[in-house]
This record gives sequence, C-alpha cells and structure tokens, in this order.
Amino acid sequence: MPSEDALREKLATASRILALKGLVGLYGHVSAYDPETDRVYLTPGAGSDRANVKPEDLWVFNSAGEKLSGEGRLALEWPIHTCIHAAHKDALAVAHLHAPFSTLFAIAEREFRPVTINGAMFAQGLGWYDYLGLVTTLEEGRRMASALGPGQRGVLMRGHGSAVVGRTVEEMLHACLILEDNAMKIWMASSLGPIRSLSVEDCQTIIGRGVPSTDAPWMFLTRQDSVWDHQPAGGWHPLE
Amino acid sequence: MPSEDALREKLATASRILALKGLVGLYGHVSAYDPETDRVYLTPGAGSDRANVKPEDLWVFNSAGEKLSGEGRLALEWPIHTCIHAAHKDALAVAHLHAPFSTLFAIAEREFRPVTINGAMFAQGLGWYDYLGLVTTLEEGRRMASALGPGQRGVLMRGHGSAVVGRTVEEMLHACLILEDNAMKIWMASSLGPIRSLSVEDCQTIIGRGVPSTDAPWMFLTRQDSVWDHQPAGGWHPLE
Amino acid sequence: MPSEDALREKLATASRILALKGLVGLYGHVSAYDPETDRVYLTPGAGSDRANVKPEDLWVFNSAGEKLSGEGRLALEWPIHTCIHAAHKDALAVAHLHAPFSTLFAIAEREFRPVTINGAMFAQGLGWYDYLGLVTTLEEGRRMASALGPGQRGVLMRGHGSAVVGRTVEEMLHACLILEDNAMKIWMASSLGPIRSLSVEDCQTIIGRGVPSTDAPWMFLTRQDSVWDHQPAGGWHPLE
Amino acid sequence: MPSEDALREKLATASRILALKGLVGLYGHVSAYDPETDRVYLTPGAGSDRANVKPEDLWVFNSAGEKLSGEGRLALEWPIHTCIHAAHKDALAVAHLHAPFSTLFAIAEREFRPVTINGAMFAQGLGWYDYLGLVTTLEEGRRMASALGPGQRGVLMRGHGSAVVGRTVEEMLHACLILEDNAMKIWMASSLGPIRSLSVEDCQTIIGRGVPSTDAPWMFLTRQDSVWDHQPAGGWHPLE
Repeated sequence: MPSEDALREKLATASRILALKGLVGLYGHVSAYDPETDRVYLTPGAGSDRANVKPEDLWVFNSAGEKLSGEGRLALEWPIHTCIHAAHKDALAVAHLHAPFSTLFAIAEREFRPVTINGAMFAQGLGWYDYLGLVTTLEEGRRMASALGPGQRGVLMRGHGSAVVGRTVEEMLHACLILEDNAMKIWMASSLGPIRSLSVEDCQTIIGRGVPSTDAPWMFLTRQDSVWDHQPAGGWHPLE
Repeated sequence: MPSEDALREKLATASRILALKGLVGLYGHVSAYDPETDRVYLTPGAGSDRANVKPEDLWVFNSAGEKLSGEGRLALEWPIHTCIHAAHKDALAVAHLHAPFSTLFAIAEREFRPVTINGAMFAQGLGWYDYLGLVTTLEEGRRMASALGPGQRGVLMRGHGSAVVGRTVEEMLHACLILEDNAMKIWMASSLGPIRSLSVEDCQTIIGRGVPSTDAPWMFLTRQDSVWDHQPAGGWHPLE
Repeated sequence: MPSEDALREKLATASRILALKGLVGLYGHVSAYDPETDRVYLTPGAGSDRANVKPEDLWVFNSAGEKLSGEGRLALEWPIHTCIHAAHKDALAVAHLHAPFSTLFAIAEREFRPVTINGAMFAQGLGWYDYLGLVTTLEEGRRMASALGPGQRGVLMRGHGSAVVGRTVEEMLHACLILEDNAMKIWMASSLGPIRSLSVEDCQTIIGRGVPSTDAPWMFLTRQDSVWDHQPAGGWHPLE
Repeated sequence: MPSEDALREKLATASRILALKGLVGLYGHVSAYDPETDRVYLTPGAGSDRANVKPEDLWVFNSAGEKLSGEGRLALEWPIHTCIHAAHKDALAVAHLHAPFSTLFAIAEREFRPVTINGAMFAQGLGWYDYLGLVTTLEEGRRMASALGPGQRGVLMRGHGSAVVGRTVEEMLHACLILEDNAMKIWMASSLGPIRSLSVEDCQTIIGRGVPSTDAPWMFLTRQDSVWDHQPAGGWHPLE
C-alpha cells in the first residue's frame, strides 16, 4: 500500500480530475481503503468544492463505519464507501458518481454491455441496486455492497448514479472514465443502428491480447489537473 | 424573510449562477417576493447581462403588478412574476427560463415525470400553459399562474419555456437545476430504452427516506460563481 | 441606411458573434448591402479568422457581382451574397453558414417548421437549394437566390449549410440564432415524442400578439463579444 | 517532400490541433512518412501530452517497423503507422484516432456514407478492420493496412477507433475533421428522418465542380493553435 500521505494525495487528485471531467458533480465522492490500518479515506460531501480537494480535506472511517476524524462537509452516503470496502477485498478505491452518461443506464431499461477495447474491463457488466433513496445507513450500505457481483467493476443505482471500484485509486479513476466513455458511445450509437456489444468472451479475447495499463491515463490526467484553471466549465451541465 | 439587502443579494447571485449554467439565456429572469412588504424584486429584462447582475439592478413591483422602482431594461413578461407571487403563497421565488432541456417538454408531446432521487421534488409533475404568445398582461399572467397546480414546482409554457418556483431563492435555484438535470436525462435515456419514471408514490417513498437539503447546492454554486471568469461559454449555445 | 463605417462595424461584429456561438465555422461569411451606393460588404473567406474580423477586413462588390476592393482571403462563394442582395430588396444582410443544427435539415429528409415563439419569424419555412456543389458562379448564385421564397428568412443548401437574411445586420444575426435554436430543439425533442410544430397561422397569432425586438439580442451579444477571450472553444466542434 | 524540420513541425502542429478539437484524446497519435529517407515520424504514445507536442518529441521508425530513435512514451500501436505507410504510397500521413463521432460507426451496425460537400472526399467509404485487440504487431499492422481499400481515406477499427490518411499532414488533418463532422451530422440527423447520403456518383459530381483546398483549414486551425490556452476543455469529454 502507498503511505497515508501518498494515498491522501492520490485520492484528492482523483477527485479533482473527476471534477474536471464533469463526473463527480455536486453529489459525488471518492474513497480509498488501507487494509493494513483499516482506515477508509473519503473526500468531503455535497456542497464542498470537488475541483480543489486537498489531501488534508479527507474524512477517515474504519471499515465498520466508525468515524475517526474529519471536519466540514460529510458525505451523507458515506456507508456506500465503508460497506463496499468492508465487503470486497479488491475494492481498495471506490467512487460514488452522478455521472452524465452512465446514470442513463440507471434510468432507461437497458443493460449495460461494454463496446470498446478499453471497456473490456467491464466484461461482467454492472451490478444493479434497486432502492429509491439515499444510502445513509449501514444496512443500506451492505445491501448496496452486495449488489456488486463477482468480477464486476461497478454498480448502477436506480434513478441515482453509480459506484465504481478499483484495486488502486488510479485503477478506479480509469474505470470511471472508461465506463463513462462506453456509456456515452452506447447512447450516441443507439441512434445509428444496432450496437456491436462485447460479450464476456469478446472481452476475454481482448484482455488476453493485452490492454493498456493504467499508468498512461494517470499520467495524462494528472498533467491536465496541473494546468487547468479550476474554473467551472460553463454551459449546459446543470449539476457540475 | 431575509432583509431587503439579503434578498437582493441572493436574487442577483441566483441570476448569475443560472447564467453560468446556461439556463437563463437571453430571455430569462428571476424574482423574489417579500409578503411582509408586498414587494416583488425582479432581475432586468432581455438585453441585460445575466452573468453580472448586481443587487442594485433589480426592478421592484407590488403583487398587484404596480411598478415601484427600477431603471434600464424591464422584462416584457414581468406579469409572470407578479401574478405567480400573488396567487401562490409558497412561491416566494420564481424563475422564468428558456432552458435547453426542460423546454423540450414544451415542444414535444411528452409528459414530464421525474427520473432521479433529487427529481422527487417534482412528484406532482409540471403545469401546462398553452398560449402562443408572450405573457405581457396581468390577464395572461393570471392564466399562467393558474396553470401551476397544487404541489407543483413548475409550469411548462408551450413553445416558450418554463416558470419554476420555490419558497426561497435557494430552493428555486435548486429546483431549476434539478428540473433541467431530469429533463436532460430523460432526453438522453430515451434513445436507450423505456424510461423508469418515478410515480407519485415513488417520489413520496424517496422523500420519506430523506433527500439532500438545498444548502449543499447553494454552497457549491455560489463558490463557482465566485471563481468563474464570467465570460460567455463559447460553442453551440445559440441563445446563451 | 447606416453610414459605411457603421455598416462595416456592425458586419464585423456580427461575424465575431457568430464565431463565438460556433455558427460560422471555417467556411461561413456574412454580408450587408447598401442600396444607395449599390455596395455589398463581405467578410473574408475560408482560412481567415472569424473570431477577430475587423471593419477594414471586408471585401466590396456591387450587386452585379463585380469586385470593387478587398485583399486577403476571398470567399469562394461570394455569389451567394451578391445574388441574394440583387434579387431580394429586403435582404440587406445575408449570412452563409455551416451551422451545426440547421444544417441537419439539409441532410435529413425532414421539413423545418418553427417550434418556439421567437421561431415565428420562420412562419414561411425555409427555401431549398438542391445543388451538389459550391456556389461559385453568378448562374448558381441566381439559382440559389431564387430558392428563397416570399416571406422566407432562409434557404437550406443540400449537404452544405444555409443562407439567412435580414433587413438589417442585427435582424440577420438574430435570425441566425433563432433558426439554430429552433433546429436544435427540434433535433433534441424528436427523441421524446411528436413535435408541436407551429403552423403558418400559429406564427401569425404569435406575431400579432407581439414578439421581442432585435435590439435585445444585439445588446446582449455585443456585450458578450466585448468580454470573451476570443479563443477557440475547445472540445468537439470539428470545424469551428 | 518538406524538409525533416518542416515535417516535424507540421506533425507536432497537427497533433496539437487534434487535441484542441478533442479528436486525439488519451490514446491517439499521428505520423508522417518521407519516402526519400524511408523515415516514419510518430508522435508520442498514451500518457503523453497531445496538446503540447513539440517537433523534437517524435519517434522515428523506418517503414519496415524498425525503431531508429525516440525516447519517452512510445505508442503501443506504432505498427498501425509503419504498416500503412509501407503498404500505401499515397498515405504519407496517418492519424490513429479514438474520436467521439466517427468511432460510433465502429460500434453501431451502420455503414458510413458522407453527407456534406466536404465529405465527398470519402466517396469510397471507409475500410473495416474487425479485430478485437490492439495493433501491436507487424502482422496485425499489415492486416490493418490491407483493410484500407482503393481510394479510401480511412479505416474503422471495431470497438476501437479509426485510422485516417492523407498525402500530406495538412490533408490528413483536414480529412480527420471532415470525417468527424460528417459522422456527427449523421448521428444527429438520424433522429430527424432518413438521411440524404451521398453516393459515389454524387461525390464525383461534387468533386468535379470543385471543392475547397486544404490550405484554408490549415491556415484557420494553425491560427487557433497559436492562440488557445492549451488547457483541457473541461466538461463531459471523459477521455480527452
């Protein structure tokens, strides 16, 4: 595991990049878990500034959902994070997003299947959490965590958004972007004709032939974070 | 009620944020009503700069539609505001918008039903005002106000736009953004498959379980207003 | 008529605003005609910088299509302008646009009918010019001009773009934006359900009740022109 | 052929412009070939900064796929470039793109046919490369190159992206933008009604009547490159 300082730095960076890309919006947050110390680090809650999160802004929980430290805005839905970290040992980083394109699959009756080479990481599709309300209790957090099936990289939350997981912060960030890119392409391509979705076998073929590592997007995106003006994007993004 | 100064400040801020988000465009305006003094405060009319409205730029009417003060550009459609404030005691803030996504429901034959957890505030749907023309008289303003049904948070105006109401400026601003977000998601998701709309009962379930307060969006958005460059967004937004 | 200096200033300003709004792109240009002097003023051709056109950059023709002055990039399709000015006495300003939304109606088999109150100015629909090629000769320019029917404010050019006219530069600019806004809304709303198009009679009703003047958009947009950074918008606008 | 310095300068410029327009994203790269020296110049690979490529950043191969020089990030899919340059003597410039609109035709079952006057350069349609994986070997590079048919200006890569070719860097850049513009217009117009696609004969008619040269877009776009702030665009472009 990275040191606490390094983990805090990465998590804050991922949050800023998700803000740049318009995926975290007003209501999203991201977390990372260190199993050695049983500590969950979580970015601040709704109302806080996602575009300028700093390493010292994080809340700390343990995986049982006990609050250890933090001040300012606390995410109402912190149980999403502590419960997924507790239930899935490979989910060392978790994003809760209200992202523009993937959320469409939590609204329309349409199964999400990947359509790009990078999308092969979503071979097992997405879990489905069918609850009309916020995840503010450990009970709901556990139900949500159990909606994430074997090999799945994310869960759709009905009329709400998603949770996306990774073994590292970098992997989680990459998965958020690839999910969004695939969701957007499916939406757009659906006006053109039937979609060539990738089956589980197609995805295995692609992965077997080699896919890009996560260091390229991390390098690309952290550079962008270092140069953008951290202003709101302007235009038709109601909740960004 | 907030003091007059505080109300003017909030209203000007809400107008700037709606400009940042591309919802108020060339033709929109927002108002707030203080029932203690029977004063309606209204942002300037078409041609004025929505991105830089200041507290001292407002027009003042009473709820009978008499003009008390103001100079510069007056909104042609001021009766929308005075008549809704007069008719609905919970409508202490009113926005008239030509917003990109919600206006689609004033053009297509499609009922608006909410699709997100936040959208539950629109449980009662939207009123419908079927008039081919601007609302420039008290008679039309009253017809328009009567189109806002019990429990409704907004009215669609055929081939025109919408009015959105709230008990406070903050609530009205939040409702504008949530309406737009829901309208956008319905539009996009409609290319993917049937939509999981939320029924009145679904909305009541969601609200019963707790929804986010309006202070989070207000905090988030006023910070954005404080840092953006107040330039036009550029790109394909013809009337922004 | 405005003086030559005023007309040049307005035309350059309109060109910059169309660049800000992403409507003039790489290939568009705008012109104005002074019938007293029989002079057509035309912005520079493809390759030139639409975001920074200055009054002294214009080409000058007469309405017979003779070049009187100008240097730098000349629009290949100058006959669009001289021929429309010559044939239509109310067309004192003409834009040739490759605009993102209105051009869709030059590609899909779909009649353009207005859908908003402002769109009522397009009561008579749009002309149709069915020619697979650039308008580089007076013969084609005249055929193009004859495609603009009585009372029409614009012509669609198959697989190409449009020409939009006005009695003044301000009116032409307003018409460009309203056409684009209507085209965009029809495109978007078409995924939601049948469209409530406005018939000729609907448009007459709207106009009879009063529509906004063109001074509001001109005031609004010239202010935007005075404050934007004149940088390219960035993002997915291939030919802007 | 341009000198090596001039070719490097043009290629770096084209890469920056493709970044400005959101076409090259995280995973694209562009190359140019000098047949006199048998050298292939290639922009850096995934992770590198496409918005600020400089002439000295390029990798150099020969057309047999032997690496001659370069450091930093190497594109995994360099065989796309060396193999197309080796197999097609008119393909002196090659772009590999993950572009937002053209990639839709690598996902939906829909044939790409041009729809605009500029699109006539795609008279022969696009090749189709049906391989589920990255092109990291000479064997796959050759199969990919053979998917580019006579007279074709590009190849779609299933679930992946495209390759676009030109006789010069300027022509290749222009083709990238025109392809994207046509793909976007087809996508959008498809919600409105049947598309007036251009047949091979239509395209020949258009070309016979004269189409714009590539110097206009090059002049227009290089000016944009010289003034933009080279910041990420912000907003919903997950992989830009």
